[in-house]
Amino acid sequence: MAIQLKNLGKAVLDAQYAVRGPIVARAQELEREGKEIVFCNIGNPQSLKQKPITYLRQILALCEYPQLLDDGASLFPRDVRETAKALLTGSKHGLGAYSESKGIRIVREAVAAFIQDRDGIDTDPDEIFLTDGASKGAQSALQILVAGPQDGVMIPIPQYPLYSATLTLLKGRQVPYYLDEDNDWQLSRKMLQDALDKAKSEGTNVRGIVVINPGNPTGSVLDKQNVAMIVDFARENDLAIIADEVYQENIYAQGAEFVSFARVLSEKNADDVSLFSLHSCSKGFLGECGHRGGYFEIRNVPEDVAAQILKLQSINLCSNLPGQIATYCMVRPPRRGEESYDLYVKERDAILSALRERAGIIAEGLNKIPGITCNTVAGAMYAFPMITLPPGKTDSDYCMALLEETGVCVVPGSGFGQRPDTAHFRTTLLPPTEKLREVVEAIGRFQASYR
Amino acid sequence: MAIQLKNLGKAVLDAQYAVRGPIVARAQELEREGKEIVFCNIGNPQSLKQKPITYLRQILALCEYPQLLDDGASLFPRDVRETAKALLTGSKHGLGAYSESKGIRIVREAVAAFIQDRDGIDTDPDEIFLTDGASKGAQSALQILVAGPQDGVMIPIPQYPLYSATLTLLKGRQVPYYLDEDNDWQLSRKMLQDALDKAKSEGTNVRGIVVINPGNPTGSVLDKQNVAMIVDFARENDLAIIADEVYQENIYAQGAEFVSFARVLSEKNADDVSLFSLHSCSKGFLGECGHRGGYFEIRNVPEDVAAQILKLQSINLCSNLPGQIATYCMVRPPRRGEESYDLYVKERDAILSALRERAGIIAEGLNKIPGITCNTVAGAMYAFPMITLPPGKTDSDYCMALLEETGVCVVPGSGFGQRPDTAHFRTTLLPPTEKLREVVEAIGRFQASYR
Repeated sequence: MAIQLKNLGKAVLDAQYAVRGPIVARAQELEREGKEIVFCNIGNPQSLKQKPITYLRQILALCEYPQLLDDGASLFPRDVRETAKALLTGSKHGLGAYSESKGIRIVREAVAAFIQDRDGIDTDPDEIFLTDGASKGAQSALQILVAGPQDGVMIPIPQYPLYSATLTLLKGRQVPYYLDEDNDWQLSRKMLQDALDKAKSEGTNVRGIVVINPGNPTGSVLDKQNVAMIVDFARENDLAIIADEVYQENIYAQGAEFVSFARVLSEKNADDVSLFSLHSCSKGFLGECGHRGGYFEIRNVPEDVAAQILKLQSINLCSNLPGQIATYCMVRPPRRGEESYDLYVKERDAILSALRERAGIIAEGLNKIPGITCNTVAGAMYAFPMITLPPGKTDSDYCMALLEETGVCVVPGSGFGQRPDTAHFRTTLLPPTEKLREVVEAIGRFQASYR
Repeated sequence: MAIQLKNLGKAVLDAQYAVRGPIVARAQELEREGKEIVFCNIGNPQSLKQKPITYLRQILALCEYPQLLDDGASLFPRDVRETAKALLTGSKHGLGAYSESKGIRIVREAVAAFIQDRDGIDTDPDEIFLTDGASKGAQSALQILVAGPQDGVMIPIPQYPLYSATLTLLKGRQVPYYLDEDNDWQLSRKMLQDALDKAKSEGTNVRGIVVINPGNPTGSVLDKQNVAMIVDFARENDLAIIADEVYQENIYAQGAEFVSFARVLSEKNADDVSLFSLHSCSKGFLGECGHRGGYFEIRNVPEDVAAQILKLQSINLCSNLPGQIATYCMVRPPRRGEESYDLYVKERDAILSALRERAGIIAEGLNKIPGITCNTVAGAMYAFPMITLPPGKTDSDYCMALLEETGVCVVPGSGFGQRPDTAHFRTTLLPPTEKLREVVEAIGRFQASYR
């Protein structure tokens, strides 16, 4: 037969993606056998009973079947109908036609206005690319940065494994830098410099740095000084920045604030630092993972390079249009005085306050368990606690045993990277509040018996 | 600045995708200046006034906003409501959650049933992968086949440039084989063998063959003997087959019939030939390009390789769920006796008969123009006529001049590949019938003056 495992490329074989790896496969098997599984392995809010935001779904329904604008007008608020009409007009041909490769223009304009309002900085709709989720933006950025096998990109440890997997597939080098667990997972200039020096000494041509803020899997939120330090570091070392900012709405800790790289770049007049920043409809309080909506913005990227990015995007024609519409709804929510506003605010605030409560439950609960320590979950959707293992056991053994014994499905720290001789797991904070308390209790009982 | 054109990889710079290249960019510019442009460069039916199929859009609206099942029940036929409910139940969490990496199980079951009915062969839902359009399936297949820089895949000339671009990005080799223009673009065993021998003599490790049937850009439909010949050729030379069958519903010529590679493989008991077959919601009579729905089926692929394909798919989490639902509607249309059936048949037949009429208009019309010869458009959505150029002019010059003079936007043959010393262009047959007649007349006037 033409295709056999031995013929596959090393890059394909080496690529790893633990968030949907063997432990998750086993969890699905157990579920089919009738066991109740709590899937804490992936940030998939609506699979754990989070309800969609009505505004977004109403607009999508009208865009899918515009006859409802006539037949079903009484079922939809006025502003929803007007927005749907404007989107249909702006898309020119509705949801059934390919859009421009970059995405529908009025959606990109809305994204630019959103960034402008958020950061108080000029933003060009032509530097916005709408994508199928944020993953595609990360892949595009890495594809541009990795030209040959000597090229490397700095990635945090722990990191979201999309980055390591994509670098592996592109046959580029991972240049790991540690996040400081003792200091709430902030970045330290020294750790960055150490990582860069080591890579250079190995002949790696370091092209960029990935920063995930708020942090996945760490649940940290970088403060403004930290973001500024990274911008300086990138500038001094001629690195592009890939800023994964998909959790920007998920901030829970008092005093914590999301500060975008775009804003700091602008405040520092760092117009010599190239930036790719990513956002998505899958996280925040929308949690619309299945719609695969998202965008990336390029800033300080030369026009001829931007043309190459556009060419790559055009090979895939365009991102899915319902996802583009969902992105519009994310960046242009109902405004005070519009008919949808009150319901929207009520739904949004209920989700965010539940997530905030759960961030507290998970971190405090895990910290009370002997053998587990967990930093504050200041943002994002995850906790990444450190665990003490019995001799001879790995974090994968631990997570598999936890699954078999309790039905709780989490991902071992090795899937994200961790300091040698430490062990962690990643869990989401997404189960409904009462269920999450049960998860924490189950982990506590398991930890006691597993030790 | 960290990112400059000179730092980009050769593969990125070399990748070409003419369907959205410089001529199209100029067309968009002219349109912004107020000139009327007829976009015949891309198979994007709904951008040229084709209406969506009501059944599909109704189901999508209900899945997006399930409250309509209660509030708006009277606006939807019973079978549509029942199907939407079944899809929502089958998806487990609606359209807002990531599905399994392969896609929602009941959609994959429906795809398997569709293949089974079409071809009378056993089909396994676990060998179906739902994708964002068919492009993603082509990319997955090529990624599996190209392990190193010596590896090559046979592609037709002319071809759809997704294949050449993807091979370039994967740093694999294109192994071109010619389609026989004098014989209605069928494949000849001799041309395949010549191409293979040449590649082998150059040290290329030929791993597979891409066949596009019905043909893009050729508009041909392969007869069963031709498909069987290709299967034999693949078997004897240990090649995997990538069968791009996205135009399988677009058959116009009397006596022409779509014969799938899966069916011929099965009839020949060729269970040693690995097959990737691709399908999409973007073509046929749905024309739902913007929904980016599609699937690929693997057949005769070892389980350990299938696991690698699944791993690659899982890095992108899953394809968009509205696209998955659109795929369901494609493979499981309303049945006789169901309330939606009559309207569905009426809409479907109107689109297909209009496309059939246009296939005749374009081929016959172009053939009447001195200096242009065009094969019968037996299927798909394109004509790929041969043109005679004045000395010193290229097909790109021709297409750019045609655009400037007439507003008709077509793609030069060089974007798809053609025999040396020949020139062609590709046009879709998608403009509304009267508009298409005008397009043909405009091309005739232009050709007379350009010579």
